[in-house]
Amino acid sequence: MTIETIKWTGNKIRIIDQRKLPHKLEYVYCEEIKTLWKAIKTLQVRGAPAIGIAGALGVILGVQHRHTESFTEFKREIDGVIKYLASSRPTAVNLFNALERMRMVVRENSRLPVAQVKKLLLKTALKILDEDKELCRKMAGFGAALIKNNDRLLTVCNAGALATADYGTALGVMYRAKEQRKKFSVFACETRPLLQGARLTTWELQREKIPVTLICDNMAATLMAQGRIDKVFAGADRIAANGDAANKIGTYNLAVLAKFHCLPFYVVAPSTSFDLKIKSGKQITIEERDSKEVTQIMGRAIAPKGIKVYNPAFDVTPNQLITAIITEKGIIRPPYIKNIQRILKDAKA
Amino acid sequence: MTIETIKWTGNKIRIIDQRKLPHKLEYVYCEEIKTLWKAIKTLQVRGAPAIGIAGALGVILGVQHRHTESFTEFKREIDGVIKYLASSRPTAVNLFNALERMRMVVRENSRLPVAQVKKLLLKTALKILDEDKELCRKMAGFGAALIKNNDRLLTVCNAGALATADYGTALGVMYRAKEQRKKFSVFACETRPLLQGARLTTWELQREKIPVTLICDNMAATLMAQGRIDKVFAGADRIAANGDAANKIGTYNLAVLAKFHCLPFYVVAPSTSFDLKIKSGKQITIEERDSKEVTQIMGRAIAPKGIKVYNPAFDVTPNQLITAIITEKGIIRPPYIKNIQRILKDAKA
Repeated sequence: MTIETIKWTGNKIRIIDQRKLPHKLEYVYCEEIKTLWKAIKTLQVRGAPAIGIAGALGVILGVQHRHTESFTEFKREIDGVIKYLASSRPTAVNLFNALERMRMVVRENSRLPVAQVKKLLLKTALKILDEDKELCRKMAGFGAALIKNNDRLLTVCNAGALATADYGTALGVMYRAKEQRKKFSVFACETRPLLQGARLTTWELQREKIPVTLICDNMAATLMAQGRIDKVFAGADRIAANGDAANKIGTYNLAVLAKFHCLPFYVVAPSTSFDLKIKSGKQITIEERDSKEVTQIMGRAIAPKGIKVYNPAFDVTPNQLITAIITEKGIIRPPYIKNIQRILKDAKA
Repeated sequence: MTIETIKWTGNKIRIIDQRKLPHKLEYVYCEEIKTLWKAIKTLQVRGAPAIGIAGALGVILGVQHRHTESFTEFKREIDGVIKYLASSRPTAVNLFNALERMRMVVRENSRLPVAQVKKLLLKTALKILDEDKELCRKMAGFGAALIKNNDRLLTVCNAGALATADYGTALGVMYRAKEQRKKFSVFACETRPLLQGARLTTWELQREKIPVTLICDNMAATLMAQGRIDKVFAGADRIAANGDAANKIGTYNLAVLAKFHCLPFYVVAPSTSFDLKIKSGKQITIEERDSKEVTQIMGRAIAPKGIKVYNPAFDVTPNQLITAIITEKGIIRPPYIKNIQRILKDAKA
């Protein structure tokens, strides 16, 4: 896997500009926090784990050129930076989890000189990046066991290397299965409006020589009815304590279809995508985005001027439609309220 | 309703070029049968009833400049023309039903001079056009009773004036309800790959001042989960004797979602869309179209080069997911095998 979605260069964040894929593999260098904010907002960098890493490194951007030695002032600056970064996108909890971890570094080291706290912050941000690589590998290990020879898999959006620091979540599972020499094929939902499936997932799977077929989102049902799908694998942007999982719009649709056609529906997400403070998916804020994402494709208008649009970026799949959640600590199966606590907490201890 | 989708000018077929909508309302004049064939193939004219009419008028184009007086030769010419037109698109049965009706005119009038048979053919083609207007109005009358004040409806593709000679099928029902001063709103699925919902349905509903909101196809499920849809209305391209209905890709998906969310799912189609010779939807030929329809939008590539694509233009909704089928002869409810026979045949008698 030679895709390096997000990287710290010493004083800048280098990201792959995912708006340009699959046509060009270009990098964006973020030295200003505003550049990073915009990169997150406009989905130049995307995917819940990658956004979390970007947020943590963004804190470094936000304070690296500040020179106060007053801890109080430094703390105020950090709080401002975190608030600003948190305003970029509301749904993926990895961002908030990573920012909170950065905030704790400051809180817990109020006796150290500011310069040293800064060093600890950088160390933590880089640790979050490194840990994500580890999380990807572990999820992949657990999940790959679910893929059998000749399986025909369905996935949505991009839950691959481009969404994480390494292997990906749902696609990571497939990469590992490929390494294990299993033979299988993948249908990728194009994932309107921003076409992450058509642009990114196909690009990744093609690079890895995994057979992939692109479909429009509304074609998954007929494939299932034809008996041409065996399993569905999706990522998640936020998972509640009861297992309800927010993910890219269209995921819930696939979960309903999988249930109707008696197919397993798997969510692959690291513990950093869990939000155990919320009881259910009802409490997840769903980002609504600009109507132009729907009315224009690659800059071309596809609808009459002035048409009203509903454009939620995510939906919530209720836990009863999820066969299992694959995390880096193991595979979680129903009953979720009990097993999420047990597996995530036990493994931490 | 001032949209005239298809018109006979005396020696040409004038159609609205639906590839250009919603940006331009332009007409194409077909004087050559090849021009018409291409217009059907490329969806300049589309919608099962409109294709049926285009096919019947196409027979006129095919023979108007032939000058044989030999009935045998004329019959051979007609058979060639019909075979050619039938090869344009395989799924909508209206085309085959209309062509068969034209063929019967020739068969049943073998004793008349060829010139007179030609006049009868033109009369029949224009009758098919006129009858479709009548069918639309009658379906609308039956269907409008199903729409209540404050209903929030969902529709897919374009089953409106642009798909018929008049009012439309699924949208016709809405136009009639509007005339009855009912207040309701519509969510239009954009309908990838060719975006008939985004381009045509929104355009029609906007003209008729019916509140319409455009969504991507993968957003319908979340709207249903939020309780923001009351009923689904779709058209059909071919309905089998058991009520299984082929329609634009994505329709089956919506039917599964409607069932899961306990919402009524209505199909609106005239008797000309029924194919009682086939027992079930399994016997319906599903057109697969060029992969470029998926990989390019408005001429712009959205996927890596060489990516494999599955692009079925239609899917089949099994009868058990259909709450009722609204025809010009009345509303047909389950059990379909019995009631389709009864209502379509009784009304004919």
